[in-house]
Amino acid sequence: MAYQAPVEQIAFILNRVVSFPDLSVTQRFAEATAETMAAILTEAGKLATEVIAPVNRAGDLTPARLENGKLRSSPGYAEAFRALAEGGWIGIAADPEYGGMGLPQALNMAVNEMLASACLALQLNPLLTQGQIEALEHHGSDELKALYLPKLISGEWSGTMNLTEPQAGSDVGALTTRAERAGDGSYRVTGQKIFITWGDSDVTENVCHLVLARLPDGGPGTRGISLFMVPKFIPDESGKPGVANDLRVVSLEHKLGIHGSPTCVMSFEGAKGWLVGEEHKGMAAMFTMMNAARLGVGVQGVAQAEAALQQAVAYAAERVQAGPILRHPDVRRMLAESRAEVFAARAICMACAVALDMSRATGLDEWAARAAFLTPIAKAHGTDVGIRVADTAVQVHGGMGYVEETGAAQYLRDVRITAIYEGTNGIQAMDLVGRKLADGGAAAMALLDEILDGAKAAQSAEPDLANQLWQAAETLRETTQELLDRDMPDRFAGAVPYLSAFARVLGAHYHLRAATGGGSKALARLYIARILPQFAADLAAARAGLADLEALDDAVLLGQMAG
Amino acid sequence: MAYQAPVEQIAFILNRVVSFPDLSVTQRFAEATAETMAAILTEAGKLATEVIAPVNRAGDLTPARLENGKLRSSPGYAEAFRALAEGGWIGIAADPEYGGMGLPQALNMAVNEMLASACLALQLNPLLTQGQIEALEHHGSDELKALYLPKLISGEWSGTMNLTEPQAGSDVGALTTRAERAGDGSYRVTGQKIFITWGDSDVTENVCHLVLARLPDGGPGTRGISLFMVPKFIPDESGKPGVANDLRVVSLEHKLGIHGSPTCVMSFEGAKGWLVGEEHKGMAAMFTMMNAARLGVGVQGVAQAEAALQQAVAYAAERVQAGPILRHPDVRRMLAESRAEVFAARAICMACAVALDMSRATGLDEWAARAAFLTPIAKAHGTDVGIRVADTAVQVHGGMGYVEETGAAQYLRDVRITAIYEGTNGIQAMDLVGRKLADGGAAAMALLDEILDGAKAAQSAEPDLANQLWQAAETLRETTQELLDRDMPDRFAGAVPYLSAFARVLGAHYHLRAATGGGSKALARLYIARILPQFAADLAAARAGLADLEALDDAVLLGQMAG
Repeated sequence: MAYQAPVEQIAFILNRVVSFPDLSVTQRFAEATAETMAAILTEAGKLATEVIAPVNRAGDLTPARLENGKLRSSPGYAEAFRALAEGGWIGIAADPEYGGMGLPQALNMAVNEMLASACLALQLNPLLTQGQIEALEHHGSDELKALYLPKLISGEWSGTMNLTEPQAGSDVGALTTRAERAGDGSYRVTGQKIFITWGDSDVTENVCHLVLARLPDGGPGTRGISLFMVPKFIPDESGKPGVANDLRVVSLEHKLGIHGSPTCVMSFEGAKGWLVGEEHKGMAAMFTMMNAARLGVGVQGVAQAEAALQQAVAYAAERVQAGPILRHPDVRRMLAESRAEVFAARAICMACAVALDMSRATGLDEWAARAAFLTPIAKAHGTDVGIRVADTAVQVHGGMGYVEETGAAQYLRDVRITAIYEGTNGIQAMDLVGRKLADGGAAAMALLDEILDGAKAAQSAEPDLANQLWQAAETLRETTQELLDRDMPDRFAGAVPYLSAFARVLGAHYHLRAATGGGSKALARLYIARILPQFAADLAAARAGLADLEALDDAVLLGQMAG
Repeated sequence: MAYQAPVEQIAFILNRVVSFPDLSVTQRFAEATAETMAAILTEAGKLATEVIAPVNRAGDLTPARLENGKLRSSPGYAEAFRALAEGGWIGIAADPEYGGMGLPQALNMAVNEMLASACLALQLNPLLTQGQIEALEHHGSDELKALYLPKLISGEWSGTMNLTEPQAGSDVGALTTRAERAGDGSYRVTGQKIFITWGDSDVTENVCHLVLARLPDGGPGTRGISLFMVPKFIPDESGKPGVANDLRVVSLEHKLGIHGSPTCVMSFEGAKGWLVGEEHKGMAAMFTMMNAARLGVGVQGVAQAEAALQQAVAYAAERVQAGPILRHPDVRRMLAESRAEVFAARAICMACAVALDMSRATGLDEWAARAAFLTPIAKAHGTDVGIRVADTAVQVHGGMGYVEETGAAQYLRDVRITAIYEGTNGIQAMDLVGRKLADGGAAAMALLDEILDGAKAAQSAEPDLANQLWQAAETLRETTQELLDRDMPDRFAGAVPYLSAFARVLGAHYHLRAATGGGSKALARLYIARILPQFAADLAAARAGLADLEALDDAVLLGQMAG
């Protein structure tokens, strides 16, 4: 079955579950009315279904490749990307001064979800470009902004993010790429970067690399790193792509999935670059790009889950084994639990996006803290759900799920990367229990208060569900308090299950809101009966601490010792 | 890192956790001494590491293929298979009268684990041959046994299992393949079968198909099905492969993994066959083969988990990000939880094998019931753990796990099939709550009694762990009782989480035995603190029943409706 954009479900979540309508009350987002939203979702859904989804399989079968050092993207990608760019979809949330639409991120993320459902490998290109647009908007000089933003927003040029080096993966501070001042205000960048998504492109006329590098007087660690704009072709005086810069794609990775997305080893060989933000303060600018991308990746998880699930439901409706297997209790269980998880993960991502928008519209710190707290949860939980649901969708297909021609396996292969890139889900969880609890738990407690208030408000309509949520939130509050008293390594030992527990409680919260706001009560009951209870096991693991992990002999881990 | 057979851990589990030594007290398995076991494990481990594992990657990169209708297996497979066959490893548990070693299945499964760690795609061939050997031993005529068993046991010929048809997957009774009496005691078989593992082979000189088909007077459903031996080449008078039979491989599937294992669409076109067992009673014989294969598939899950985990631990020990990541709390958590899960899943499989052996050695119904009860748990939980651990191993590798060259992704792709073939894990769970509780719960309660006794016995040495296990087992007993009072569709709606809960409680039971029997206490504490608690959420889901699943609108499942 072809992917059908779930316009109604997304609109319902925005309108009834995550307070999107509050945005249109602000001055900044006065244009984000219900009508605008509906029009945009419908239009984007059509593009996703009719233009983007049809190239998804071709990208898997015919990966991007290098031909004499030049990138050749997968069949149909160029046309699909053109349609996406020319529709203005890259710049939905970008500054109108440079050609953007200035709409909320929540709407942008809803559109991104549809595009990422249709073709993850292709959607990575505009997603990273959007991150670069944000970084430039916040940290670029007026000159850089004027030169690059219109091109990026229109999709004539695309953007990449160059952090990772062979010896410096999650440990960005270990990077060795150097930058030198050229004396004319520009810089020369030299070094090798790996895992660069869409590090080259033949679907855009220029590729703009944001590269982290260290100046000669940059100190060690992350504090001595600067950020540079290093374009593939140096813009000439008219702003058109001019001479080729001193950089090249060394090779492409052969990956489990997202074959249509070229993952490049990049070599910068004295390439000309321009500073973004201040010298030695590149990480701040990069974080802007990364935070936007992190939420975007969480949305990718939801997106792939949605597409995989739709296909599995359609398969189960058609596949007859003494009646359609959609009616078999165990198959229905798999599909229903998946749908409940997709709903929850989507609501979490949208709540994060709305918080980001509210923070920008109101300037209030509480909203910024809310968005910051939700970002790692949206990223890690959204992608965990993406993988879990894609895996379940394979299972629903039975043997046909293991055969590549049905496409079920492609979703699983493609979505698997989302738990790794933009900071592994372990890194997200450490961010949550580390940096995001560094306020003494204020943001966490504010969110828990909202959940408890929600449970209270639902008490008369859905007493059972409300009570279960209430108790879960109370237990989560206690564990949060307990973690705050611990040192970091001990917190880190329980970070992933803690994040998972928080996500499940949040999910139940949004489900309850939906059930009491006109949504499916059966889905909420399902979630609270079958998915929420896992929070308790998660919290047990979150509290288990470091001691037993350290007591365990490495030889036992390796299997080279009895017991 | 190359796979190292975990000989000590396996021997420890056999000796101290699942009562393998009791077997050598029986007359049938008097030769299964500790020395024999140690010698066999060591020898098989050497073969797995030195001969089988080296062909694993080549099988992935160069799949089996058809060349003018002839199968060409992956590079190195023929030599590796020869070494395996000539070492006598196929017939470890087979009847000595026909060339087998007559040793316990527990030992056979331990060897199978090592071979399946080394190369799952190749090991499928001897695994299915072993299943066919068992089916013939129990149901074949003396003539068939004399003709086929020596060849299968020596690995000169290989065996396949032909159940699935395009319209009849899990619903075997819907099959349409026909058989007709030829008048000379033989039969003619006509029909198409799909998903036939190693349906053709160039590593053996003959391929023996056990084919389910319906005689003209066979009734509808599974009761009217007969089983036939249909060889690729009809044995001549001297028992050598003679004229080609009327059957052919139509095509091979392009699969997510196990590329080295040819998955065939088979066409039988009036092929000559011989009855196995009685007419219309083929399912009984096929079940013999399937039950052996189910435990074998659970072991495959454990095997792939072991291999993937070993590689992840080695990677984490070498990969430095401000110290080896093996010391990072979250990475260590992933590896330690995986090791604890592998230990538990292996113990469950081995306990199942020992129960099977005890039932054969003693003829006691209790042992048969124990083996029957544990088989679906061993299969489903072993393969769930296989997938979970292989997935975690990818995550530990970070970006390198998504790149195919490290091999981490291959484990995930390969092991994914194990939750599907030989009856999906959903089918296993329905078998558990259906057929395996049809004794009024006697087998379940007997196992729970053993667990409660174990907790009592460990009370003084490990009071905390013993108490947690005790309470979990009591809750499991209550839920079991509750399920017994329900009708089948309602049970089925909770079958998968019920099986998972049972497996976790069993896992804790074996961990506690290990901890009080000289094994790793840290590993047991880890399991009971971090893995066992999930049983409660599983049981909540198991009790949730069918109502909400049925209340859910199909349009909500599809995402085409608000909420």
